Amino acid sequence: MATLGLIEYQDASAEVREVYDDIMATRKTDWINNFWKALANDPPTLRRTWKSIKEIMAPGALDALTKEMLYVAVSVSNQCGYCIASHTAAARKAGMTDAMFAELMAVVGMANETNRLASGYQVEIDERFR
Amino acid sequence: MATLGLIEYQDASAEVREVYDDIMATRKTDWINNFWKALANDPPTLRRTWKSIKEIMAPGALDALTKEMLYVAVSVSNQCGYCIASHTAAARKAGMTDAMFAELMAVVGMANETNRLASGYQVEIDERFR
Amino acid sequence: MATLGLIEYQDASAEVREVYDDIMATRKTDWINNFWKALANDPPTLRRTWKSIKEIMAPGALDALTKEMLYVAVSVSNQCGYCIASHTAAARKAGMTDAMFAELMAVVGMANETNRLASGYQVEIDERFR
Amino acid sequence: MATLGLIEYQDASAEVREVYDDIMATRKTDWINNFWKALANDPPTLRRTWKSIKEIMAPGALDALTKEMLYVAVSVSNQCGYCIASHTAAARKAGMTDAMFAELMAVVGMANETNRLASGYQVEIDERFR
Amino acid sequence: MATLGLIEYQDASAEVREVYDDIMATRKTDWINNFWKALANDPPTLRRTWKSIKEIMAPGALDALTKEMLYVAVSVSNQCGYCIASHTAAARKAGMTDAMFAELMAVVGMANETNRLASGYQVEIDERFR
Amino acid sequence: MATLGLIEYQDASAEVREVYDDIMATRKTDWINNFWKALANDPPTLRRTWKSIKEIMAPGALDALTKEMLYVAVSVSNQCGYCIASHTAAARKAGMTDAMFAELMAVVGMANETNRLASGYQVEIDERFR
Repeated sequence: MATLGLIEYQDASAEVREVYDDIMATRKTDWINNFWKALANDPPTLRRTWKSIKEIMAPGALDALTKEMLYVAVSVSNQCGYCIASHTAAARKAGMTDAMFAELMAVVGMANETNRLASGYQVEIDERFR
Repeated sequence: MATLGLIEYQDASAEVREVYDDIMATRKTDWINNFWKALANDPPTLRRTWKSIKEIMAPGALDALTKEMLYVAVSVSNQCGYCIASHTAAARKAGMTDAMFAELMAVVGMANETNRLASGYQVEIDERFR
Repeated sequence: MATLGLIEYQDASAEVREVYDDIMATRKTDWINNFWKALANDPPTLRRTWKSIKEIMAPGALDALTKEMLYVAVSVSNQCGYCIASHTAAARKAGMTDAMFAELMAVVGMANETNRLASGYQVEIDERFR
Repeated sequence: MATLGLIEYQDASAEVREVYDDIMATRKTDWINNFWKALANDPPTLRRTWKSIKEIMAPGALDALTKEMLYVAVSVSNQCGYCIASHTAAARKAGMTDAMFAELMAVVGMANETNRLASGYQVEIDERFR
Repeated sequence: MATLGLIEYQDASAEVREVYDDIMATRKTDWINNFWKALANDPPTLRRTWKSIKEIMAPGALDALTKEMLYVAVSVSNQCGYCIASHTAAARKAGMTDAMFAELMAVVGMANETNRLASGYQVEIDERFR
Repeated sequence: MATLGLIEYQDASAEVREVYDDIMATRKTDWINNFWKALANDPPTLRRTWKSIKEIMAPGALDALTKEMLYVAVSVSNQCGYCIASHTAAARKAGMTDAMFAELMAVVGMANETNRLASGYQVEIDERFR
């Protein structure tokens, strides 16, 4: 098989199960999504990625909802289908309403437009922005 | 000259000055940054872009600060130097602290990492995310 | 039909067949993948692209496996689904093990993360790197 | 030195000079721009890239000006500073007026915006477009 | 449901119908494609985006066909599946032949290649291009 | 000041110095490059990023040189100036010759070209690649 399989809980090693358990406990859910089941083919990457995500996505100076919307903004700019789907779902779970999603999309679209206008017009950075 | 010049207020047409005046009034500043002075070479694009930005960036379901941070997230993902500089400055003006900037960068970096892990492992979108 | 069809060997012109034959001989296979069948709609691009690929991907200062992994790294960063699938298969055929794939993904993910951190923090290039 | 130097005509091998001569003859100029002087560090890539560019950019079903504007559109979307500068100059030489440049930028900006709206809203491809 | 639904004409508000009517009248068709039905979830974005597209894509210094091909060039560089499909169809409707499409692809492919060669060799912008 | 300053060793907290010391010990150098001095504004990100880089870039199934070249391939595809400069220097230090750099660039350029040809021709993934 060309692509690696998804590692289900019952087939996982103790090391992988420990991460799965922490994901479910942290997210208060009984479900693991495919991203983690794919990474489980490489336990060190699974562990490191989950540890970083858990640390970074915890509320801090920014709340969890803002962080999920930033994740969507990046995923949409990168055109990553899986990431758009999973983080849009996560943002909704964190409280994103339809109106918030609509404004998020409007900002992301506009930013992608003006990024190219700034580049195409070869605009020099203003002294005040340095 | 290969690149277009920047159109200063004193050299601008009435049509361009009207937009400049609205930018300064809306932003409560007496200063126009280079992006708009470059776009002023094409008054319809100047007008349309400013009108869209003004509408989209006004507080609504999302506050102005969240919107500026989304703008930074997109600009950083696209590696647009001008846009990173100008919107980081705008986000700071809107209240972004050093701690918020640090978390913003952490989320953007992590999102760019996991976007590639999701793509590279060819992860299929979970039914629940559709 | 909106998209162009795939040109099968039996329906191909002599010019296209010549390229197909060289692809199969070079790769020691009796099979042509869809990418070439799509390019065959434009024989000059088919010929030029195959000629470049054949020249570039031949072992030289870098071995064939390293080159295929570099191809995967670029395709994953660009989020090109077809390219990820075909070059991951090619890299496996050239000897990439599961452990090598796992490390490849880890490096690609990390590079995409730090690329954005470097941009977002607006880091200046060190004198020693120039 | 960390970066490779630029190979000037007087320091170039016969193989490189042959390409330089063809570039100047084809473009009816006595000048070689830095891109080629950098590629000259690797003569096979210099030769292959010039040969492809010469073949692809020659007028055919599309005229030279349209091709240069397409080149600018891609370079702006990719945020490649060198490429934006050189191909905007080439497009101007091929006849691009300020008004054409302005419309080019407007289309490129809008395309980058709607690309993200289409992705963010997870729009499925219409049957008629397949 | 995780993704937003498509708003059909019969279910649309008067505000949305007005835009749909203008799209169909402008394009001389009785059909609305999915992109607009998705944006209709956010009427201000629907209205603003259509108004901008209508203004920008109208023939001016550049003809409609050139503009659609520029749209395809950007969408292909961004790897946006929906956008490639819809704007390739639009370009064909505007008169793009198979030969023109083939040259468009060749230019876009080459531009994406040389963009990376220019960046990778860290080529400085020539004085003449500034 | 709009951008954050670089944190020099003598001004750094004990927490930051500990990371700096580990970077210098691991790399057998007495020098810290700007990337880390910028991240030091956010000690948790400094620590997490260095820890991940150290783990990921250590020789394993792939040797250190291959990993650095993969890093360059990603950075060039993303057009990240700082990252291209720093990782090209690192790859040279790890043993990359001019000939290897030349082939690396050729592969990266070609991959970026064929990525777009695959997308633009809307090529379906072959069954054998799934």
